Amino acid sequence: MNPNAIAILGGTGDQGLGLALRFARAGRPVVIGSRKLDRARAAADEVRAAVPGAEVEGLDNADAVAKGPIVILSVPFEHTAGTVKAVKERLTAAHVVVSMGVPLATAIGDGAVRTVGVWQGSCAELVASLVPEGVQVVSAFQNVSAHRLRELAQPVECDVVVSGPPAPRKLVMALCALVPGLRGVDGGPLANARYVEGVTALLIGLNARYKVPEGIGVRFTGLPD
Amino acid sequence: MNPNAIAILGGTGDQGLGLALRFARAGRPVVIGSRKLDRARAAADEVRAAVPGAEVEGLDNADAVAKGPIVILSVPFEHTAGTVKAVKERLTAAHVVVSMGVPLATAIGDGAVRTVGVWQGSCAELVASLVPEGVQVVSAFQNVSAHRLRELAQPVECDVVVSGPPAPRKLVMALCALVPGLRGVDGGPLANARYVEGVTALLIGLNARYKVPEGIGVRFTGLPD
Repeated sequence: MNPNAIAILGGTGDQGLGLALRFARAGRPVVIGSRKLDRARAAADEVRAAVPGAEVEGLDNADAVAKGPIVILSVPFEHTAGTVKAVKERLTAAHVVVSMGVPLATAIGDGAVRTVGVWQGSCAELVASLVPEGVQVVSAFQNVSAHRLRELAQPVECDVVVSGPPAPRKLVMALCALVPGLRGVDGGPLANARYVEGVTALLIGLNARYKVPEGIGVRFTGLPD
Repeated sequence: MNPNAIAILGGTGDQGLGLALRFARAGRPVVIGSRKLDRARAAADEVRAAVPGAEVEGLDNADAVAKGPIVILSVPFEHTAGTVKAVKERLTAAHVVVSMGVPLATAIGDGAVRTVGVWQGSCAELVASLVPEGVQVVSAFQNVSAHRLRELAQPVECDVVVSGPPAPRKLVMALCALVPGLRGVDGGPLANARYVEGVTALLIGLNARYKVPEGIGVRFTGLPD
Protein backbone atom coordinates (compact mmCIF):
# COMPACT_ATOMS: atom_id res chain seq x y z
CA MET A 1 0.00 0.00 0.00
CA ASN A 2 1.37 3.38 -1.04
CA PRO A 3 0.66 5.80 1.86
CA ASN A 4 0.10 8.65 -0.58
CA ALA A 5 -2.25 6.79 -2.92
CA ILE A 6 -5.88 7.78 -3.26
CA ALA A 7 -8.32 5.13 -4.43
CA ILE A 8 -11.53 6.38 -6.02
CA LEU A 9 -14.26 3.76 -6.26
CA GLY A 10 -16.66 4.65 -9.03
CA GLY A 11 -13.81 6.71 -10.39
CA THR A 12 -15.13 6.23 -13.92
CA GLY A 13 -18.10 8.51 -13.16
CA ASP A 14 -18.03 12.24 -13.83
CA GLN A 15 -17.31 13.44 -10.33
CA GLY A 16 -14.94 10.61 -9.41
CA LEU A 17 -12.95 11.03 -12.59
CA GLY A 18 -12.83 14.78 -11.95
CA LEU A 19 -11.27 14.19 -8.53
CA ALA A 20 -8.87 11.64 -10.05
CA LEU A 21 -7.69 14.23 -12.57
CA ARG A 22 -7.20 16.86 -9.90
CA PHE A 23 -5.36 14.62 -7.43
CA ALA A 24 -3.16 13.22 -10.21
CA ARG A 25 -2.38 16.75 -11.28
CA ALA A 26 -1.35 17.54 -7.69
CA GLY A 27 1.16 14.70 -7.95
CA ARG A 28 -0.66 12.10 -5.87
CA PRO A 29 -0.80 8.48 -6.98
CA VAL A 30 -4.39 7.70 -7.96
CA VAL A 31 -6.15 4.36 -8.29
CA ILE A 32 -9.42 4.31 -10.17
CA GLY A 33 -11.75 1.56 -9.07
CA SER A 34 -14.77 0.28 -10.95
CA ARG A 35 -16.96 -2.80 -10.98
CA LYS A 36 -15.67 -3.27 -14.51
CA LEU A 37 -11.91 -3.55 -14.92
CA ASP A 38 -11.91 -2.40 -18.55
CA ARG A 39 -13.77 0.78 -17.67
CA ALA A 40 -11.36 1.45 -14.80
CA ARG A 41 -8.42 1.04 -17.16
CA ALA A 42 -10.00 3.32 -19.77
CA ALA A 43 -10.54 6.00 -17.13
CA ALA A 44 -6.91 5.66 -16.00
CA ASP A 45 -5.87 6.15 -19.64
CA GLU A 46 -7.98 9.29 -19.76
CA VAL A 47 -6.21 10.68 -16.68
CA ARG A 48 -2.82 9.82 -18.14
CA ALA A 49 -3.72 11.63 -21.36
CA ALA A 50 -4.88 14.76 -19.54
CA VAL A 51 -2.13 14.84 -16.93
CA PRO A 52 1.27 13.94 -18.41
CA GLY A 53 3.30 11.89 -15.96
CA ALA A 54 0.28 11.02 -13.83
CA GLU A 55 0.77 8.03 -11.55
CA VAL A 56 -2.57 6.32 -12.12
CA GLU A 57 -3.95 2.84 -12.57
CA GLY A 58 -7.37 1.29 -13.10
CA LEU A 59 -8.43 -1.71 -11.04
CA ASP A 60 -11.44 -3.63 -9.84
CA ASN A 61 -12.95 -1.83 -6.79
CA ALA A 62 -11.70 -4.40 -4.26
CA ASP A 63 -8.18 -4.37 -5.66
CA ALA A 64 -8.20 -0.57 -5.71
CA VAL A 65 -8.96 -0.50 -1.98
CA ALA A 66 -5.85 -2.53 -1.25
CA LYS A 67 -3.64 0.07 -2.96
CA GLY A 68 -4.09 3.11 -0.75
CA PRO A 69 -5.20 4.29 2.69
CA ILE A 70 -7.71 6.80 1.35
CA VAL A 71 -10.76 5.31 -0.34
CA ILE A 72 -13.20 7.77 -1.90
CA LEU A 73 -16.65 6.36 -2.60
CA SER A 74 -17.96 8.03 -5.73
CA VAL A 75 -20.84 5.80 -6.76
CA PRO A 76 -24.55 6.57 -7.25
CA PHE A 77 -26.40 6.35 -3.95
CA GLU A 78 -28.20 3.15 -4.91
CA HIS A 79 -24.84 1.41 -5.38
CA THR A 80 -23.35 2.62 -2.11
CA ALA A 81 -24.23 -0.31 0.14
CA GLY A 82 -23.39 -2.87 -2.57
CA THR A 83 -20.01 -1.28 -3.24
CA VAL A 84 -19.06 -1.16 0.45
CA LYS A 85 -20.13 -4.78 0.92
CA ALA A 86 -18.11 -5.82 -2.11
CA VAL A 87 -14.89 -4.32 -0.76
CA LYS A 88 -15.28 -4.57 3.00
CA GLU A 89 -13.08 -7.66 3.34
CA ARG A 90 -10.22 -5.51 2.07
CA LEU A 91 -10.84 -2.56 4.39
CA THR A 92 -8.60 -2.29 7.47
CA ALA A 93 -8.07 0.16 10.31
CA ALA A 94 -5.43 1.78 8.07
CA HIS A 95 -8.20 3.00 5.76
CA VAL A 96 -10.16 6.21 5.72
CA VAL A 97 -13.31 5.86 3.64
CA VAL A 98 -14.61 9.13 2.19
CA SER A 99 -18.33 9.21 1.43
CA MET A 100 -19.25 11.73 -1.24
CA GLY A 101 -22.63 10.21 -2.05
CA VAL A 102 -25.99 11.93 -1.74
CA PRO A 103 -29.33 10.09 -1.36
CA LEU A 104 -30.86 11.73 -4.42
CA ALA A 105 -34.34 10.53 -5.27
CA THR A 106 -33.02 9.42 -8.67
CA ALA A 107 -32.20 6.23 -6.76
CA ILE A 108 -35.93 5.44 -6.86
CA GLY A 109 -36.64 6.91 -10.27
CA ASP A 110 -37.67 10.33 -8.95
CA GLY A 111 -35.81 13.63 -9.51
CA ALA A 112 -32.34 14.79 -8.50
CA VAL A 113 -33.70 17.91 -6.80
CA ARG A 114 -35.12 15.75 -4.01
CA THR A 115 -33.61 13.32 -1.53
CA VAL A 116 -34.87 10.12 0.02
CA GLY A 117 -34.62 9.55 3.75
CA VAL A 118 -31.81 7.30 4.92
CA TRP A 119 -32.45 5.30 8.06
CA GLN A 120 -28.95 6.01 9.38
CA GLY A 121 -29.38 9.75 8.78
CA SER A 122 -27.21 10.24 5.71
CA CYS A 123 -25.33 8.39 3.01
CA ALA A 124 -22.14 8.86 5.03
CA GLU A 125 -23.66 7.27 8.12
CA LEU A 126 -24.99 4.41 6.00
CA VAL A 127 -21.40 3.81 4.89
CA ALA A 128 -20.19 4.03 8.50
CA SER A 129 -22.75 1.41 9.50
CA LEU A 130 -21.38 -1.01 6.89
CA VAL A 131 -17.60 -0.80 7.21
CA PRO A 132 -15.70 -3.12 9.54
CA GLU A 133 -15.02 -1.86 13.05
CA GLY A 134 -11.99 0.42 13.20
CA VAL A 135 -12.38 1.77 9.66
CA GLN A 136 -12.94 5.51 9.80
CA VAL A 137 -15.50 7.23 7.62
CA VAL A 138 -15.47 10.87 6.58
CA SER A 139 -17.97 12.82 4.50
CA ALA A 140 -16.74 15.27 1.86
CA PHE A 141 -16.85 16.51 -1.76
CA GLN A 142 -20.65 16.17 -2.25
CA ASN A 143 -21.11 19.68 -3.57
CA VAL A 144 -18.12 19.92 -5.88
CA SER A 145 -19.16 20.25 -9.51
CA ALA A 146 -17.90 17.43 -11.74
CA HIS A 147 -17.71 19.85 -14.63
CA ARG A 148 -15.55 22.30 -12.75
CA LEU A 149 -13.28 19.54 -11.46
CA ARG A 150 -12.61 18.49 -15.03
CA GLU A 151 -11.77 21.99 -16.26
CA LEU A 152 -8.18 21.63 -15.14
CA ALA A 153 -7.15 25.12 -16.20
CA GLN A 154 -9.68 26.73 -13.81
CA PRO A 155 -9.95 26.77 -10.01
CA VAL A 156 -13.04 24.95 -8.70
CA GLU A 157 -14.30 27.71 -6.35
CA CYS A 158 -16.11 25.64 -3.77
CA ASP A 159 -15.87 24.99 -0.05
CA VAL A 160 -15.88 21.34 0.99
CA VAL A 161 -17.52 20.60 4.33
CA VAL A 162 -15.62 17.68 5.83
CA SER A 163 -17.33 15.73 8.62
CA GLY A 164 -16.18 12.75 10.64
CA PRO A 165 -13.80 11.79 13.44
CA PRO A 166 -11.18 14.51 14.09
CA ALA A 167 -7.99 12.86 12.78
CA PRO A 168 -9.27 11.59 9.39
CA ARG A 169 -11.32 14.76 9.06
CA LYS A 170 -8.13 16.82 9.18
CA LEU A 171 -6.52 14.45 6.69
CA VAL A 172 -9.35 14.94 4.18
CA MET A 173 -9.39 18.72 4.76
CA ALA A 174 -5.72 18.67 3.73
CA LEU A 175 -6.63 16.73 0.57
CA CYS A 176 -8.96 19.55 -0.43
CA ALA A 177 -6.02 21.94 -0.43
CA LEU A 178 -4.46 19.91 -3.25
CA VAL A 179 -7.13 21.19 -5.66
CA PRO A 180 -6.98 24.87 -6.68
CA GLY A 181 -10.11 26.65 -5.46
CA LEU A 182 -11.25 23.94 -3.07
CA ARG A 183 -11.17 24.73 0.64
CA GLY A 184 -11.74 22.13 3.33
CA VAL A 185 -14.08 23.35 6.07
CA ASP A 186 -14.33 21.61 9.43
CA GLY A 187 -17.83 20.12 9.39
CA GLY A 188 -17.69 18.44 12.79
CA PRO A 189 -19.12 14.98 13.45
CA LEU A 190 -20.20 12.63 10.68
CA ALA A 191 -23.89 13.11 11.45
CA ASN A 192 -23.64 16.61 9.97
CA ALA A 193 -23.28 14.96 6.57
CA ARG A 194 -27.09 14.97 6.32
CA TYR A 195 -27.11 18.75 6.03
CA VAL A 196 -24.30 18.80 3.49
CA GLU A 197 -25.92 16.07 1.40
CA GLY A 198 -29.15 18.06 1.32
CA VAL A 199 -27.32 21.03 -0.14
CA THR A 200 -26.49 18.95 -3.20
CA ALA A 201 -30.18 18.56 -4.09
CA LEU A 202 -30.61 22.30 -3.60
CA LEU A 203 -27.64 23.06 -5.86
CA ILE A 204 -28.98 20.75 -8.59
CA GLY A 205 -32.18 22.78 -8.56
CA LEU A 206 -30.24 26.06 -8.62
CA ASN A 207 -28.16 24.84 -11.58
CA ALA A 208 -31.39 24.18 -13.51
CA ARG A 209 -33.19 27.39 -12.54
CA TYR A 210 -30.16 29.59 -13.24
CA LYS A 211 -29.05 27.56 -16.27
CA VAL A 212 -25.54 26.92 -14.99
CA PRO A 213 -24.64 23.45 -16.32
CA GLU A 214 -21.06 23.99 -15.08
CA GLY A 215 -22.41 23.84 -11.55
CA ILE A 216 -23.00 26.36 -8.79
CA GLY A 217 -20.79 25.98 -5.71
CA VAL A 218 -20.83 27.09 -2.09
CA ARG A 219 -18.56 29.38 -0.12
CA PHE A 220 -18.82 30.26 3.54
CA THR A 221 -18.34 33.92 4.42
CA GLY A 222 -16.73 35.12 7.62
CA LEU A 223 -14.47 32.09 8.16
CA PRO A 224 -11.14 33.03 9.74
CA ASP A 225 -8.15 32.76 7.34
CA MET B 1 -52.85 48.25 5.39
CA ASN B 2 -49.77 50.03 4.05
CA PRO B 3 -48.64 48.08 0.93
CA ASN B 4 -45.00 48.78 1.74
CA ALA B 5 -45.14 47.77 5.38
CA ILE B 6 -43.28 44.73 6.67
CA ALA B 7 -44.57 43.08 9.83
CA ILE B 8 -42.08 41.02 11.81
CA LEU B 9 -43.65 38.67 14.34
CA GLY B 10 -41.17 37.86 17.06
CA GLY B 11 -39.45 41.05 16.00
CA THR B 12 -38.14 41.53 19.52
CA GLY B 13 -35.74 38.60 19.07
CA ASP B 14 -32.18 39.05 17.82
CA GLN B 15 -32.72 38.07 14.20
CA GLY B 16 -36.14 39.69 13.83
CA LEU B 17 -34.95 42.93 15.34
CA GLY B 18 -31.94 42.82 13.04
CA LEU B 19 -34.22 42.58 9.99
CA ALA B 20 -36.42 45.35 11.40
CA LEU B 21 -33.38 47.63 11.68
CA ARG B 22 -32.25 46.86 8.15
CA PHE B 23 -35.67 47.29 6.52
CA ALA B 24 -36.30 50.51 8.47
CA ARG B 25 -32.93 51.78 7.33
CA ALA B 26 -33.93 51.01 3.73
CA GLY B 27 -36.92 53.30 4.25
CA ARG B 28 -39.63 50.66 4.57
CA PRO B 29 -42.35 51.00 7.22
CA VAL B 30 -41.79 48.26 9.80
CA VAL B 31 -44.20 46.81 12.33
CA ILE B 32 -42.71 44.80 15.17
CA GLY B 33 -45.04 42.15 16.54
CA SER B 34 -44.70 40.35 19.84
CA ARG B 35 -46.88 38.38 22.22
CA LYS B 36 -46.17 41.18 24.68
CA LEU B 37 -47.13 44.66 23.60
CA ASP B 38 -44.65 46.40 25.90
CA ARG B 39 -41.76 44.39 24.46
CA ALA B 40 -42.90 45.20 20.91
CA ARG B 41 -42.99 48.88 21.77
CA ALA B 42 -39.55 48.76 23.40
CA ALA B 43 -38.11 47.10 20.29
CA ALA B 44 -39.73 49.77 18.10
CA ASP B 45 -38.08 52.41 20.28
CA GLU B 46 -34.75 50.65 19.77
CA VAL B 47 -35.19 50.79 15.99
CA ARG B 48 -36.14 54.45 16.15
CA ALA B 49 -33.03 55.21 18.20
CA ALA B 50 -30.73 53.40 15.77
CA VAL B 51 -32.38 54.61 12.57
CA PRO B 52 -33.35 58.27 12.77
CA GLY B 53 -36.64 58.88 10.98
CA ALA B 54 -37.57 55.19 10.95
CA GLU B 55 -41.25 54.51 10.36
CA VAL B 56 -41.75 51.79 12.97
CA GLU B 57 -44.32 50.73 15.51
CA GLY B 58 -44.67 47.93 18.04
CA LEU B 59 -47.91 45.97 18.28
CA ASP B 60 -49.38 42.71 19.45
CA ASN B 61 -48.67 39.98 16.82
CA ALA B 62 -52.26 39.84 15.53
CA ASP B 63 -52.50 43.61 15.18
CA ALA B 64 -49.11 43.70 13.45
CA VAL B 65 -50.39 41.27 10.80
CA ALA B 66 -53.20 43.64 9.91
CA LYS B 67 -50.74 46.43 9.15
CA GLY B 68 -48.83 45.05 6.17
CA PRO B 69 -48.93 42.48 3.38
CA ILE B 70 -45.58 40.94 4.27
CA VAL B 71 -45.48 39.03 7.53
CA ILE B 72 -42.12 37.65 8.59
CA LEU B 73 -42.28 34.91 11.20
CA SER B 74 -39.22 35.25 13.42
CA VAL B 75 -40.09 33.14 16.43
CA PRO B 76 -38.34 30.12 17.95
CA PHE B 77 -39.45 26.92 16.22
CA GLU B 78 -41.45 25.74 19.21
CA HIS B 79 -43.59 28.87 19.03
CA THR B 80 -44.21 28.69 15.28
CA ALA B 81 -47.50 26.81 15.26
CA GLY B 82 -48.85 28.76 18.22
CA THR B 83 -47.98 32.09 16.64
CA VAL B 84 -49.59 31.20 13.31
CA LYS B 85 -52.72 29.96 15.08
CA ALA B 86 -52.89 33.16 17.13
CA VAL B 87 -52.86 35.39 14.05
CA LYS B 88 -54.54 33.28 11.38
CA GLU B 89 -57.90 35.02 11.69
CA ARG B 90 -56.16 38.17 10.49
CA LEU B 91 -54.37 36.59 7.54
CA THR B 92 -55.90 37.14 4.09
CA ALA B 93 -55.02 36.33 0.49
CA ALA B 94 -53.29 39.72 0.43
CA HIS B 95 -50.62 38.40 2.79
CA VAL B 96 -47.31 36.72 2.11
CA VAL B 97 -46.03 34.91 5.19
CA VAL B 98 -42.26 34.50 5.32
CA SER B 99 -41.01 31.58 7.39
CA MET B 100 -37.48 32.07 8.67
CA GLY B 101 -37.68 29.43 11.38
CA VAL B 102 -35.51 26.35 11.71
CA PRO B 103 -36.52 23.21 13.63
CA LEU B 104 -33.47 23.31 15.89
CA ALA B 105 -33.36 20.62 18.52
CA THR B 106 -33.25 23.34 21.16
CA ALA B 107 -37.04 23.10 20.84
CA ILE B 108 -36.83 19.85 22.81
CA GLY B 109 -33.98 20.85 25.09
CA ASP B 110 -31.24 19.40 22.85
CA GLY B 111 -28.55 21.36 20.99
CA ALA B 112 -28.75 23.99 18.24
CA VAL B 113 -26.36 22.04 16.00
CA ARG B 114 -29.07 19.44 15.41
CA THR B 115 -32.59 19.57 13.99
CA VAL B 116 -35.74 17.66 14.80
CA GLY B 117 -37.83 16.12 12.04
CA VAL B 118 -40.94 18.01 11.03
CA TRP B 119 -43.83 15.94 9.77
CA GLN B 120 -44.56 18.42 6.97
CA GLY B 121 -40.91 18.38 5.86
CA SER B 122 -39.75 21.76 7.15
CA CYS B 123 -40.73 24.65 9.38
CA ALA B 124 -41.88 26.53 6.27
CA GLU B 125 -44.20 23.70 5.21
CA LEU B 126 -45.54 23.47 8.75
CA VAL B 127 -46.46 27.14 8.45
CA ALA B 128 -48.01 26.53 5.03
CA SER B 129 -50.14 23.75 6.52
CA LEU B 130 -51.53 26.13 9.14
CA VAL B 131 -52.36 29.33 7.25
CA PRO B 132 -55.83 29.86 5.74
CA GLU B 133 -56.28 28.85 2.12
CA GLY B 134 -55.04 31.51 -0.29
CA VAL B 135 -52.32 32.84 2.01
CA GLN B 136 -48.95 32.35 0.37
CA VAL B 137 -45.93 31.14 2.30
CA VAL B 138 -42.31 31.73 1.39
CA SER B 139 -39.16 30.53 3.15
CA ALA B 140 -36.19 32.90 3.55
CA PHE B 141 -33.60 34.51 5.87
CA GLN B 142 -32.83 31.40 7.94
CA ASN B 143 -29.08 31.68 7.53
CA VAL B 144 -28.63 35.39 8.00
CA SER B 145 -26.61 36.19 11.11
CA ALA B 146 -28.49 38.29 13.68
CA HIS B 147 -25.22 39.86 14.74
CA ARG B 148 -24.33 40.95 11.22
CA LEU B 149 -27.83 42.29 10.61
CA ARG B 150 -27.46 44.51 13.63
CA GLU B 151 -24.07 45.92 12.61
CA LEU B 152 -25.69 48.54 10.45
CA ALA B 153 -22.42 50.03 9.22
CA GLN B 154 -21.37 46.72 7.61
CA PRO B 155 -22.82 44.69 4.71
CA VAL B 156 -24.23 41.31 5.81
CA GLU B 157 -22.44 39.16 3.17
CA CYS B 158 -24.89 36.30 2.85
CA ASP B 159 -27.04 34.75 0.13
CA VAL B 160 -30.68 34.18 1.05
CA VAL B 161 -32.31 31.16 -0.56
CA VAL B 162 -35.95 32.08 -1.14
CA SER B 163 -38.40 29.22 -1.71
CA GLY B 164 -42.13 29.23 -2.37
CA PRO B 165 -44.67 30.00 -5.09
CA PRO B 166 -43.15 32.06 -7.95
CA ALA B 167 -44.81 35.46 -7.43
CA PRO B 168 -44.27 35.89 -3.67
CA ARG B 169 -40.85 34.30 -4.05
CA LYS B 170 -39.81 37.10 -6.41
CA LEU B 171 -41.28 39.65 -4.00
CA VAL B 172 -39.16 38.34 -1.13
CA MET B 173 -36.06 38.11 -3.32
CA ALA B 174 -36.54 41.82 -3.99
CA LEU B 175 -36.76 42.46 -0.24
CA CYS B 176 -33.31 40.93 0.18
CA ALA B 177 -31.90 43.56 -2.14
CA LEU B 178 -32.91 46.23 0.40
CA VAL B 179 -30.19 45.03 2.76
CA PRO B 180 -26.55 45.71 1.78
CA GLY B 181 -24.72 42.42 1.27
CA LEU B 182 -27.83 40.23 1.13
CA ARG B 183 -28.66 38.59 -2.20
CA GLY B 184 -31.90 36.76 -2.85
CA VAL B 185 -31.40 33.43 -4.62
CA ASP B 186 -34.25 31.60 -6.34
CA GLY B 187 -34.70 28.51 -4.18
CA GLY B 188 -37.61 27.00 -6.12
CA PRO B 189 -40.61 25.37 -4.43
CA LEU B 190 -41.30 25.67 -0.71
CA ALA B 191 -40.33 22.05 -0.04
CA ASN B 192 -36.69 23.03 -0.62
CA ALA B 193 -36.85 24.91 2.67
CA ARG B 194 -35.86 21.67 4.41
CA TYR B 195 -32.39 21.87 2.87
CA VAL B 196 -31.98 25.54 3.70
CA GLU B 197 -33.15 25.03 7.28
CA GLY B 198 -30.61 22.24 7.70
CA VAL B 199 -27.82 24.60 6.72
CA THR B 200 -28.61 26.73 9.78
CA ALA B 201 -27.72 23.89 12.14
CA LEU B 202 -24.52 23.35 10.17
CA LEU B 203 -23.63 27.05 10.39
CA ILE B 204 -24.25 27.11 14.14
CA GLY B 205 -21.70 24.29 14.47
CA LEU B 206 -19.24 26.10 12.21
CA ASN B 207 -19.61 29.30 14.26
CA ALA B 208 -18.66 27.33 17.36
CA ARG B 209 -15.79 25.36 15.84
CA TYR B 210 -14.26 28.40 14.14
CA LYS B 211 -15.10 30.76 17.03
CA VAL B 212 -17.00 33.27 14.89
CA PRO B 213 -19.72 34.62 17.19
CA GLU B 214 -20.59 37.21 14.51
CA GLY B 215 -21.86 34.35 12.36
CA ILE B 216 -20.62 32.58 9.26
CA GLY B 217 -22.73 33.08 6.12
CA VAL B 218 -23.21 31.37 2.78
CA ARG B 219 -22.50 32.51 -0.76
CA PHE B 220 -23.15 30.58 -3.95
CA THR B 221 -20.38 30.66 -6.54
CA GLY B 222 -20.99 30.59 -10.27
CA LEU B 223 -24.42 32.29 -10.20
CA PRO B 224 -25.01 34.50 -13.23
CA ASP B 225 -24.99 38.24 -12.43
